[in-house]
This record gives sequence, structure tokens and C-alpha cells, in this order.
Amino acid sequence: MGRYIYFFAKNEAKGSAKLRNLLGGKGANLAEMANLGIRVPPGFTISTEVCTYYTEKGYYPSELDEEIKKNLKKIELITGKKFGDPDNPLLVSVRSGARISMPGMMDTVLNLGLNDKTVKGLVKQTDNSRFAYDSYRRLVQMFGNVVLGVPGEKFEELIDKMKESKGVKQDVELPDESLKELVEEFEDLIKQEKKVDFPQNPFKQLEMAINAVFASWNNKRAINYRKINKIPEHWGTAVNVQTMVFGNMGNDSCTGVGFTRNPATGEKTLYGEYLINAQGEDVVAGIRTPQPLAKLKEEMPQVYQELYEVTQTLEKHYRDVQDFEFTVEKKRLYLLQTRTGKRTAQAAVKIARDMVKEGLISKDEALLRVEPDQLEQLLHRRIDPKAKVEVLARGLPASPGAATGIIVFTADRAVELADNKKKVILVRKETSPEDIHGIAVAQGILTSRGGMTSHAAVVARGMGKCCVAGCEAIKVDEKEKRFTVNGMVFQEGDYITLDGSSGKVIKGKVPMLDPELSGEFREILEWADEVRTMGVRANADTPRDARVAREMGAEGIGLCRTEHMFFGEDRLPFVQEMIMAESSEDREKSAKKLEPMQKEDFKGILKEMEGLPVIIRLLDPPLHEFLPNYEDLLVEITKLKIQGADSKEIEAKEKLLQRVADLREMNPMLGHRGCRLGITFPEVYSMQVRAIFEAAAELTKEGAKVFPEVMVPLVVNEKELSILRTQIVKVAEEVMEKENIHFEYRVGTMIELPRAALCADKIAQEADFFSFGTNDLTQTTFGFSRDDAEGKFLPFYIEKKVLEEDPFQVLDQEGVGKLVQMGLKEGKKSNQSLEVGICGEHGGEPSSVKFCYRIGLDYVSCSPYRVPIARLAAAQAKIEENQK
Amino acid sequence: MGRYIYFFAKNEAKGSAKLRNLLGGKGANLAEMANLGIRVPPGFTISTEVCTYYTEKGYYPSELDEEIKKNLKKIELITGKKFGDPDNPLLVSVRSGARISMPGMMDTVLNLGLNDKTVKGLVKQTDNSRFAYDSYRRLVQMFGNVVLGVPGEKFEELIDKMKESKGVKQDVELPDESLKELVEEFEDLIKQEKKVDFPQNPFKQLEMAINAVFASWNNKRAINYRKINKIPEHWGTAVNVQTMVFGNMGNDSCTGVGFTRNPATGEKTLYGEYLINAQGEDVVAGIRTPQPLAKLKEEMPQVYQELYEVTQTLEKHYRDVQDFEFTVEKKRLYLLQTRTGKRTAQAAVKIARDMVKEGLISKDEALLRVEPDQLEQLLHRRIDPKAKVEVLARGLPASPGAATGIIVFTADRAVELADNKKKVILVRKETSPEDIHGIAVAQGILTSRGGMTSHAAVVARGMGKCCVAGCEAIKVDEKEKRFTVNGMVFQEGDYITLDGSSGKVIKGKVPMLDPELSGEFREILEWADEVRTMGVRANADTPRDARVAREMGAEGIGLCRTEHMFFGEDRLPFVQEMIMAESSEDREKSAKKLEPMQKEDFKGILKEMEGLPVIIRLLDPPLHEFLPNYEDLLVEITKLKIQGADSKEIEAKEKLLQRVADLREMNPMLGHRGCRLGITFPEVYSMQVRAIFEAAAELTKEGAKVFPEVMVPLVVNEKELSILRTQIVKVAEEVMEKENIHFEYRVGTMIELPRAALCADKIAQEADFFSFGTNDLTQTTFGFSRDDAEGKFLPFYIEKKVLEEDPFQVLDQEGVGKLVQMGLKEGKKSNQSLEVGICGEHGGEPSSVKFCYRIGLDYVSCSPYRVPIARLAAAQAKIEENQK
Repeated sequence: MGRYIYFFAKNEAKGSAKLRNLLGGKGANLAEMANLGIRVPPGFTISTEVCTYYTEKGYYPSELDEEIKKNLKKIELITGKKFGDPDNPLLVSVRSGARISMPGMMDTVLNLGLNDKTVKGLVKQTDNSRFAYDSYRRLVQMFGNVVLGVPGEKFEELIDKMKESKGVKQDVELPDESLKELVEEFEDLIKQEKKVDFPQNPFKQLEMAINAVFASWNNKRAINYRKINKIPEHWGTAVNVQTMVFGNMGNDSCTGVGFTRNPATGEKTLYGEYLINAQGEDVVAGIRTPQPLAKLKEEMPQVYQELYEVTQTLEKHYRDVQDFEFTVEKKRLYLLQTRTGKRTAQAAVKIARDMVKEGLISKDEALLRVEPDQLEQLLHRRIDPKAKVEVLARGLPASPGAATGIIVFTADRAVELADNKKKVILVRKETSPEDIHGIAVAQGILTSRGGMTSHAAVVARGMGKCCVAGCEAIKVDEKEKRFTVNGMVFQEGDYITLDGSSGKVIKGKVPMLDPELSGEFREILEWADEVRTMGVRANADTPRDARVAREMGAEGIGLCRTEHMFFGEDRLPFVQEMIMAESSEDREKSAKKLEPMQKEDFKGILKEMEGLPVIIRLLDPPLHEFLPNYEDLLVEITKLKIQGADSKEIEAKEKLLQRVADLREMNPMLGHRGCRLGITFPEVYSMQVRAIFEAAAELTKEGAKVFPEVMVPLVVNEKELSILRTQIVKVAEEVMEKENIHFEYRVGTMIELPRAALCADKIAQEADFFSFGTNDLTQTTFGFSRDDAEGKFLPFYIEKKVLEEDPFQVLDQEGVGKLVQMGLKEGKKSNQSLEVGICGEHGGEPSSVKFCYRIGLDYVSCSPYRVPIARLAAAQAKIEENQK
Repeated sequence: MGRYIYFFAKNEAKGSAKLRNLLGGKGANLAEMANLGIRVPPGFTISTEVCTYYTEKGYYPSELDEEIKKNLKKIELITGKKFGDPDNPLLVSVRSGARISMPGMMDTVLNLGLNDKTVKGLVKQTDNSRFAYDSYRRLVQMFGNVVLGVPGEKFEELIDKMKESKGVKQDVELPDESLKELVEEFEDLIKQEKKVDFPQNPFKQLEMAINAVFASWNNKRAINYRKINKIPEHWGTAVNVQTMVFGNMGNDSCTGVGFTRNPATGEKTLYGEYLINAQGEDVVAGIRTPQPLAKLKEEMPQVYQELYEVTQTLEKHYRDVQDFEFTVEKKRLYLLQTRTGKRTAQAAVKIARDMVKEGLISKDEALLRVEPDQLEQLLHRRIDPKAKVEVLARGLPASPGAATGIIVFTADRAVELADNKKKVILVRKETSPEDIHGIAVAQGILTSRGGMTSHAAVVARGMGKCCVAGCEAIKVDEKEKRFTVNGMVFQEGDYITLDGSSGKVIKGKVPMLDPELSGEFREILEWADEVRTMGVRANADTPRDARVAREMGAEGIGLCRTEHMFFGEDRLPFVQEMIMAESSEDREKSAKKLEPMQKEDFKGILKEMEGLPVIIRLLDPPLHEFLPNYEDLLVEITKLKIQGADSKEIEAKEKLLQRVADLREMNPMLGHRGCRLGITFPEVYSMQVRAIFEAAAELTKEGAKVFPEVMVPLVVNEKELSILRTQIVKVAEEVMEKENIHFEYRVGTMIELPRAALCADKIAQEADFFSFGTNDLTQTTFGFSRDDAEGKFLPFYIEKKVLEEDPFQVLDQEGVGKLVQMGLKEGKKSNQSLEVGICGEHGGEPSSVKFCYRIGLDYVSCSPYRVPIARLAAAQAKIEENQK
């Protein structure tokens, strides 16, 4: 063990910011400031090693006492005060300070050095008897509680009694005398409770306080906090003994906090507030309203100038925005603390970009300064944070963004009102494919049932519309066109506002902020693009999504789902006809009717993405999703029968019911879907593939350069892919021959089942590309049905830390990630030209994006508005790798 | 290339059985027999290399013609006949013969050497003009068709015309003259069709025939056959040219086939049949009834004696049962073919055991001679194969075995009749938990709906009862107490018989055979136990199953499922009460009522398995399985409402419906089940664990040595197991303290989700044992819901060879197996004392059992009646490894 104690005072500190592990965050920064020539109240830090020593052995190093005395002497020399001197007493604070902040977990004692004699010296010094006795009262109370263990409420009881007897309500109203009396009562209480006297000897006070702070490292609260936050026991805490300074010594004193730049906007201006003639606690207590720092410039111009210069020095020194605390005691400025300032996404972007322009930090540093996760704030329409809102209820944040509109209860009504230029919010118990035209025209969707993958949620996310799902507090009565919540009734035409990012349902209209891709933001993202080597694509199902994706910087479409196209109002009847078909010929006939529409869909998307690859996934969900709900039909038929309805009508319904029954499954997630449909009903895929290639041919003829890539979903082995690849290639050749034109195309597969990842070597031989579908891969690897888990055990699991994270949000690197790694490695080994990406929702989650980079994926693909997040995260991953 | 041609005749063959690849199966065995001094019609084999040469180059090696002539000369020397000699003509056959038999795929030409002149010699030689001209007629016909390519039906037309003109019905009724005429007509037909003459030159005939047989290796039929059976193109076929011998030369001639032991029973006796004065074709055609070989002993005692000795020589030489063909031409015996004889399971067991006793083969060889898969025949009650049955319909073979009984349509009625000592078959559309008491008393279960994992199937398999499920041809009318099938009506009280192994539903009573564990069978299994090093346990849920398992040789219980206990008539109300409970206290109260019953369940099983480990899996299925069906309730409520029923009744039903709705899931397979229930509702597992340990404590007090092992299902990470392990250990300690007794126990987990296998290293640190649940692991690794896949795409996939095997029957070694291997390796690496087994249905499937041995599992566990199969397969795996 080296030295135990590190002294600090302006221009003469033994420690520095580098010694954070030894001195704790507070101690290290105090030393650093002192060495920068900044005035800090002089003091010393007892290192964390002493804590460890004490924890291990139960006693302190023998030299410690001597060293404390030596350092106290140094303080006395600088301050001209003397510890325990009845005329000019030095007062000190004793505070904990670990490597990282553990707010409120450990103990603090202020005003040490006061006793019956020195308090009189303080009265003289300050000419403020009330202040002196109140300080003394606080010392005895804190010491009695923290150091001696007398329950805090016993002191409070005595204060309350005193206030009652004096007929006052606030502590501050108590006169000097009462405070004096309280000191005595407190000392009696200590004696009575703990059979010891409050120590009048200041050195005894100091020794006991230091001891108590070290011991507080092992109090229950701190142990629990460390467990939860995974802070190692052996780190220990440091103890800071520091001269007390007082901002409440008159109108030439004050105390305040501030930032070197505006933490909300990033603007380069001193930002903060202060209170004249006050102490830190008063600012926190909020009894008086603090003034903005600009006001200090008027009131104490010199002090302001000094503060400005000092904090500028700090920002330059630390090369980041500083969040500082200061006290002015009789016009003399002391800095009490400095640390990196927290900031909003907007500020983070602006500050990072500005600091590069100012030459303060490098572009790499700037990129690391912005939290990718935070960026989402900037990428959706959002409720103005300044607005006052009345929250009616909270549902699941199913699709981010915010929307205001009048409520409607049916899709048809939504269309009707939207045609009349009304902004509508569609409110349903739950949505079904038949509501799709209503969803398309609505500003936002609210459902009282269903989870994060309910129909409403999936479709809304797909369309980039805000959605609050499964909001059970809202009782929807679709027939009466109203909903009730907490006894309030809302009817068609009433305004509500949804916040899809938080799940809030809000009464009335609320002011909104539009998403911003400000100049600074663009600039930062361009720097990210210069650095990153992993591609970023978008998941987009419509030309509109594709356009947004391109604006957001996507380098192609990583996943274009085709099933949502099937839900269109004009297509659903043909889709249902295709499903009800009883022969291959009939199926083909219905499919043919869909082909021209699908072709237009693909033309639109391919055109938006001209020059970039577009991966189109063939139909994935089980067919029953396109038919009416089984239970609804069942109830309807039961009613018709009892009511003696026409037998033909019943028969038709029963036929439909039979088909739904044939198709529905125990576990549709693991059922007859994906390429299993393609293999058993080849007509559907044939139609889709033909539509894709016809679209490509037509665009090529028009002179556009398009790159369609056909993706086969849900393969378990190479045979499936080989069968379908043969079929796809055949159609491509037919189209090229018929249209007499050549276009490039590729055929690949989704890797979304564990077996596909495990057998990637063989599958890769049939594929031009792999795209890891980590949503489904997570479902099967965990055996979690997302629909079920999110409403049932998953929240419980996360709350109880059975799982650290929701694996549907953050890629499970240990399990699912291992499969992705295996699949990638084996796939590339057996097919060197294989391109490998990921298109699950994890493709837009920063820690997952970084993982994807580290294991060597070629690109990630995510929803359009997460593209900027992925671009930044990919750049950070590269920088972090370079720094290793 | 070595020699092209291998001569063979008694005591002088150039080839041998070892040259199978070169000579084909037939040629190699002919050479081997010749070298053993057995009389075979002399001949020679043209090697497969010539075929390859010809296929590659399109012509034959130049020396071939010369060699053929040389070898023909050798035949002439031995037979004293001459090829093409008008007085004493030698006739030969030309046949294909590949490495492995490709029955009927390639061509054969008989009677080569006949022409207008030599036929007269044959007449003289045999004194049988009809025989000679019929032989000639056959040659021209076969040659014309096979060698020259004239369609076979054109010859048949001419024969038909001839028969008509002669007024006869059978070929054999045609007189010599007509046959002579037919030869001429055939020759004209060839001339007319192919513009060539039928070659009168015997050498030309031979050359062309050899050419045709080689060419037939590449006919369409043969190519397809090879594709399907994965026979490589380059193997080629050999060609055998062999002296014709005739069993139809009078009453001192005959032809026959036989086995050296009875292939049905294994009895050591010459077994087979023959026809006097006949040719091989006649035996096949079945015009006359053949005689048993015993009869030959009377008719031709010397020939019989020779045949007996020769075939005994063959059996000793080949050290296995031989399936042979022979011809006697004028009292002279010729062996035409020999090969290993196919046999029934019963025979295989007896023969293997007897041959060891006879010193013919080693025990290891004996163990390899029995096909484990075949043994299943012996392990269930089965329909007497001799019985004539009328099959009404076929459903899914859901649970093996056979049963006869009178039909009933409700569980209550089943119990009523069973109480009156009636044997009943329970027939339902589908079963539900409420039928469990009916299933328990029934001989077998028949359902018209549901798959291999429907309630009926699972429960029946669990109880070891025969079940035919999803038999859609049967229309069940439960109300009218009848079912109809193919227009027939069956009513309560009518007899039917079920074959759960084939899925057949049979009319009336049928004679049955009981399962046999004969002395020989036991002996073989004991030998297997001596050899094998991998353990074999059983999956058993009841004391009765446990008893059977022990009889079958199980070394413990690898999986005791506890959910079936919950379905008991006396428990279900409490289970439902537990599920409907709205607070933890209420849940605990209901659980407490189940505890004594569960304790008795466990006592029974532990007692049966005294001295052996019993792995008890805690509750696994989702809770809604114990409640009524959602749709039934829905329909019921709809009816009640329309009919204006009592509002309280409706309310109660709606409350139940609500609970069912809360609990039911989109994908129950991936839902709130297994340890997820244990963690969210700890009361259920607590009750079960307490019941297990109380049972162990009571038995230990009674002096029994029991080894309960608690298995936690469906874990995805170590945290789940650690939470539950803590809970389980706590209960164990409480019980031991309360009962003041010590017993051993262990805590482990099922590995049945990909993530568990991928993270086995961490999970192993919380586990005493792993048991791979390969049923669920297959479902999640493939993303196949067994319930859905088996009724939908899986049969199609297997038929079209998209999958080679049903992965629920045969472990998918490439995908699922890789996970098992990883989990095993990582688990054992991080916990050396970890015991690892498998308890999916694959544990009783021979190729899967062998895989389990090869990768190093400690044991397999399977249903009780498959234990002998697993014991044998495990021994075979060990022997196969030793042989490497």
C-alpha cells in the first residue's frame, strides 16, 4: 500500500483525475481541479485502500491517525483557521466517494469541529448566532444518527415538539434560543439512547465520523445497491475531509449548479441556476426560486467572470460538457464538484459536432459521445415535452411515435372521415385483416387487447404508424361507438392523443414536435458512414417506407415482407379465393389474379431503391391468417342455427368454418408456413416470383438498374432451398426470355430456425445470401412464443432478473448469438461469396448492431427510422475495435 | 483392369464370395458354392468392370470375345454338350447380377443356343418335342423383346390368336405343332418390326444377349431404381452366362426353394417347397401347389439327403441361415442360388441364440444378427397374423398394441361396463381430460380427430394402451351412441378390434397373440447387457409402468411425467380449483389438497424402483390443458344467452371462459409452461417437491432404499434452475428435518430447448444431471409443431424426400444431434460429475440409441416396452465401435 492520504488545495494536490480508483470520483476530481489552479475548499482524501484494509482487518493502519493530523495542519495553514479553536474554528465535512457514484447509499457528516466552545467562535466570526447554532444542531443530529446510530425520527420528534411549543411551522422559524435548547436535548437523547456523550473533542468527532463513513460501505443499503449494480465489494470507498464553506454568509454569498453548455439544446452558453445567501440544501429543498446564471453576471460580475473562466478551463481540460457545483462565500468562489454532464439526444448531437469544429475532440470521439439508443427521441413525431397532458391510461408501446386525432371505431368510418380530411385514431378491441384499410388512413391505432405482435402492432410498425396496444383499462364498445376509461366516456369524434413510444393514451389534442434530421445530425451520420465498414439496410414493405429508408441512409432493403400486400382491401378477396381453392388449377387461377397487383407493388419498391439491392421475402405466415376468425364464425353459426336461419346460408358458413378449421393450428408459429407453403402449394410462390421478375424486367426496359433478391423463409435444410431455387431460377429465365431482357437477381434464404443455423454449411451451397431472422430465431431458441410470453411470464422474468434483458429487444448474444455466429462461420466457409446480414428487429438495437459487427456480418437491416441508429452504432463498433 | 471373365463349375471357380463388387451378388455366390464342391450348372461371370468399360467407351474390350469363347469351351468340356451342336446342344442363360439385388430391373435371356437345327437335337435328347419347341418359342420371344426391342404385347397377341384358333385357354394346352408355328410367326414379327432376322447363329445370339444385359444397366427403370435407392452409377452390373438345367425333364426332375432353418420360428429344420417336373417359373406362377421339402425326403430320399448336406455346408460356411434355390435334372441336384435368409423377429432371436450354442457364431455376432427395430413385433399384444380380418378403416397408429372390445361412446359408460367385467373400446371424436377415467378402464381408444400428440394419443401411450387416433373415415355420433363407416353402422355393444401399431380398425373380435419375452429372447438380452456400457432406463408414469419397465430390464426411471397424475378423476377438480385461484394463498390451499395424492403416486413408483434412480419431472404442460375447451364453452354460452338462460349460470360460465381465455395461448408449445410455471406460480412445484420428498422419507423409514431425482423442465438459462434448485433443496431439508431421516436426492434439468443446449456450460453448474428431451428439442430446432406438422406438411415432406426421415421418430443427428452433442460436451466440461441421458421417444429407436452411445451419453430412457430394443441397440453400438 502506498500513501493513505492525498491532500488537495488550489495548486497543490497530491492526487489527480487518473487516480479515480484510489480516490473515488469526488476525490479525484477535487484533486484535478486543485491542480488546475481552481479554488476548491482545501481538504484531503483518505484512499479506498484504507477502506479495504479496514474491511479486511477490522482496524486502521497505525500511521493513519498521524497522517490525518498532519493534513489537518496543512488545511489550518491555508485557511488560517484552527480545528477546535474557540476563536476561529475550522469546520470540516466528511463524505464518502466511491469509484462510481452510489447516490444516497453511504453516509455524510457536516460541520465537524463544532462544540459548546467553538460554536461561540462561529457566532463571532459570522456575526450570525442563528446560523451558528443551527449548524451545531445539525452536527449533533447527523452525528447522533449516522455515527452513533440513534434513529433519525427521534430527533425529528424533538424538533416537532419544539416547533409546537413555539407555535411555529417551519424549522427556519425557530429562534436561536430554541436551537440552543435543541442541541442540549439532542445531546441528552444520545446519552439516553446510547449511554455515551456527544464528543466535545473535535478530533474525536473526526475520528468517529471517518470510521462511520468507511463502515457505511458495508451497510445493508450499500450492499444491496452493489449487488444490483454489480459493483465489486473490494472496490471500497474513499473518504473526503474538506473545509466547510458557506454560501449563506450574507448577500455577498451564494451557491449554485450549472452546465458548460445547455444540456437540452447543446447551445454553447453557461447554463444553470443559483441562490443568493443560501446553502446547497436550500437549492434542493426548493423553498426559494433559484435565479438563472445569467442573472449572476449582473449581480456579481466579477464572480460570474471567474466562474465562466474556471468552467471553461474545466470543459477544455476534460474535453466534455461539465456539470458543476459551486459556492461563493463572501465573494470568494469555490468549486465543489465537477463531472461529465448528462444531455438530451439533440444536445448530444450538437455538442459532439460543435466540439469537433472547435478542435476540442476528434470525429471518432464525437461519434462515441452520442448514445445511439437516445437518437430514437429524434426520429419520431413526439409529444412536446413541455406540454401539460392528462394521461387516461397506459397500454403497450407497440409502435413508436405520437398522434392526435378524433376517435372512430370501425375501419369503414375511418376511411369515410379521412376522405373528409379528418385526422382519425382507430380504436378497436383488436384489429384483423379486414381493418387494414382503416389502419392505412388512421394517424394511430389503439387496441384494448393483444400484445406487441398482435395484428395491430405488427401492421402499425410495418406502416410506421403509432400504436398503443393491449390497453386493457379502456373498455371499447364498438356497437355503441364509445369507450370508457376510469368512468369517463369518449365517443366518436372526441379527440385523443397516443404516445406509441410510452404507451400513453392522453385526453384531447396535444402539441407535437416533428422528427428532426438536423444539419448537425446529418453531419455526425456522415462521419459515421466514413468510419463504419458494416452495411446498413432497411426493412420496408412499401414504396413509401422505401423512400423514408433511403432518406435515412439505408443502403438497400434487407427485408421486404410480401404478406402485408395480401391484406390490401382489393387483394384479400382473391387471397381468400386462392386459399379456399380445392385444386392446384383453381389455386393457380386465383393466384393469377393477384399477380398484376403484386407486380405493381414490387415495381414501386424496386424503383425507389434503384441502384440498391432489394431483398423480397416470399409469403411467410400461415394461410389461416387471411381467413376470418374461427371463434367468430363458430358463434355466428351457433346463432344462425338456433334462430333457424336459411340452411344454405348455414351450409356456406360451415364450409368456410371447415376450411378455417383445416388450416388453423395448435402452434401456428411452428406450423404450415414459410417455405413449407411454397413447397406444398407451389402456385403461390410461383406467382410472387413471376411478379418480382416481371417488375424487374419492366423497370430494366425503362432504363432503371434494379437488383431484386428473392428470399425463401423458414428453411430447415438444403433440400427445401434447392427445390425452390430451381423453381425460382426457372421463372427468372422464362421471364428474361419472354421479355428479351437481362437483369441481375439473387436467391437466398432467411436463417430463422436453429436447425438452419446448425446446418448452414449445406444450406449455403444453395444460397447467394443469408439473412438471419432473429425474431423467429429467438422464439425457437428460447422456446418463447412472443405473442404469449410478452403478456405472461416475460415481464415477470425481466422484473425478477431471471432474464437480464428482453431477448426480443436486445439480441441474446450467449444463445441466439452463438447460433448466428455458427451459421455465419459455417455458411461463409462453404460458400465464400455468401453475403450474410440480419433482418430481425435487433438490426436497429445498438448493442446488437455492435455484436453483429464484431462477429463479421456484412450488414444489418432495421426499420427505416432506426437506420440512423444502426449507422452510428456500426461506426462506434468499428472505433471501439480500433481502440483495442 | 484384371481379368474380364471368371469361370465357375463344381470345384473349379476363379471367383469367390469376396469378389462381390466385381462379380455381383449372384456371380460371387455361384463361384463360392462351386469352390465348396457344390454342384452348380457350370458357367462364367463377365465382371462389372466390363460394364463400366462399356458404359464409358461404348464398346467392349477387344479380348472379350476371345475369352467368352474360351470359357464356353470349358463348359462344353464339363457338360459334354456343345454350343450350337445340332445333336447335343448346350443351352445357356444370360442374367444380370449387380452388387446388390435390383429385382426385375434388368434383363435376362434364357435358352440361348437354340435354333432351327439344335431344337431338333433337344427333341432327341429329351424325347420331349413339346418341351423343346416351347423352349425355342420362349427364346425367340424373350430375345425379340429384350434384345431386339419388339414390344412384348405383340408376341402375346400372337399367342392369344393361336389359342383362340386352337380353342384352348392356357399356354400349356397348345400342342407341339402350334408352338412350332408360333416360332415362325415370332420370327416373322421380328423381321417385320425390326427389319432383321432372328439370329440362327448361337454365338451371335450370345453376343447380342450379353450386350443387351449390359445395356439394361442404363435403362430408365434401372436408373430410377438406383436414384431412389442411392446406388452409384459406376458400380455397373456383372453378366452371368450359365448352362441351362431343367427341372421339367420328367418325374425324376424338380425345382424348389428353401431355408436352412424355419424363417418364421427359427426352428432348426430344412424348410421350403418344391414341384416335381417343373421349372422355376411354374413355382412362381402358382399353377400347381408345391410340396413341402419333407415330402422330397420320401419321394427322392437320396436327392433330399444331398440337398440337406449341401445346404448344411452352406449354412456352416456362411455362418448364417441360407435362402437357396435348386433344380434337380434327372436326379442330379444343382444349386442355382444362395443368400442370407430373411426372418421374423422371433426367428432372428432364436437363430442367433441357437447358433451361439452350436458354436457357429460368437455372442457379438449373435447380437448383431437381430434387428432391434424388428423386436417391437414381440413386445406388444398383437393380432394373430394368421387371422382373417375385415379392415373397416385406417387411422394414425397412435399407441401400439392391439385390443378387442365392445364399443362405448362416453367415459362414464366405459366405467359402468368395465365394472361389469366387460372389455370396452372407448370411441370418441376426440378425448379431453374429462375422459381420463374412461380411458383408464378401456382396452383401447379410437378417435376420429386429432394427431399423434392429441390428448388420446398421449394419454394412451402413457398408459401403454393401444390407440388409433384421427381416423376420419369413422363418423362418430356420440349422442346417438353409434358410428358409421363406409355405410355400415356400429352401435354401443358391437365388437371391434384396434391395431394401434398399424392404425387399423377391424370389424368384430380377432384372435390375439400375447407379447413374448421368451427364454431365448431373455438370453440374448442378457448377452447384450454384458456387452453394453450405456445405461437403459424407462419412461414410466405409474407404478404399473414401472413394474413393466423393471421386467423389461430398465435400470431406473429416466422420465416420470407428473401431469398425467393431474388428470385423474379424483384430482382434476382440485387442479381446476388451483388454476382458478386468484391469489397465491388460494393456490396454495388447493395445492395442499393434491399433495397427499401426489405423495401416494410417488411412493408407488419409488417403491417399484427400489434401489434404482427415479427421475421425476415437475409439472410441464400449460395450465389451460386442465380446463374445459374454449370453443365448447363459447358455443355453450352463446346458446344459453339466446335461450335466455339464468343469468347466474351464464355469469359463472363466463367467468370460467374468461379464465380459459386468459390462459390459452397462440402457441402453447412455446408458452407459459414448464419451469416458467414453477417460477411464476411457485406453489405448484412446492407441492410436488414436498410430495416427492415426503414419499422418499416414508419409504426410507420403512427400510426401502430410494433415489428420487427431481427434474426441472424447459429451462433456458442457469438462473431459472438456480431459483428452483434453491426452492427444492429447501423443501428437501425441511422434510428431512421434520421426519428426522436422511435420503439421497438429486436435482437436474431437462435440456429441451436450443438455448439450454447452447448454454449448457452454465446450466450444468446448477445441475446434478441433464436429460435431453429430444421431442421438444426437435420441435424447436426444426420449428415444427408436432401436432400440426404430422397432419399437414410432414407426410408430404417425407414422401417427397424433402426430409429423409420423420425427425420425431429418428433423431436428426445433423441438426438436433449437434445440439445434443454440444450440450453434452459443454455440460460435462463444466461439471465433471454431471450425468447425462436422453428421455425423448428417440431413446427407444435403434439408430438414435447408437448415436447416443457414440457421442457418449450415460443412458437412454424410453417407454417400457422399448427397453429391450434399446438394450440390444446399445450393445450393438458398442460392438460396432470395437470392430472399428
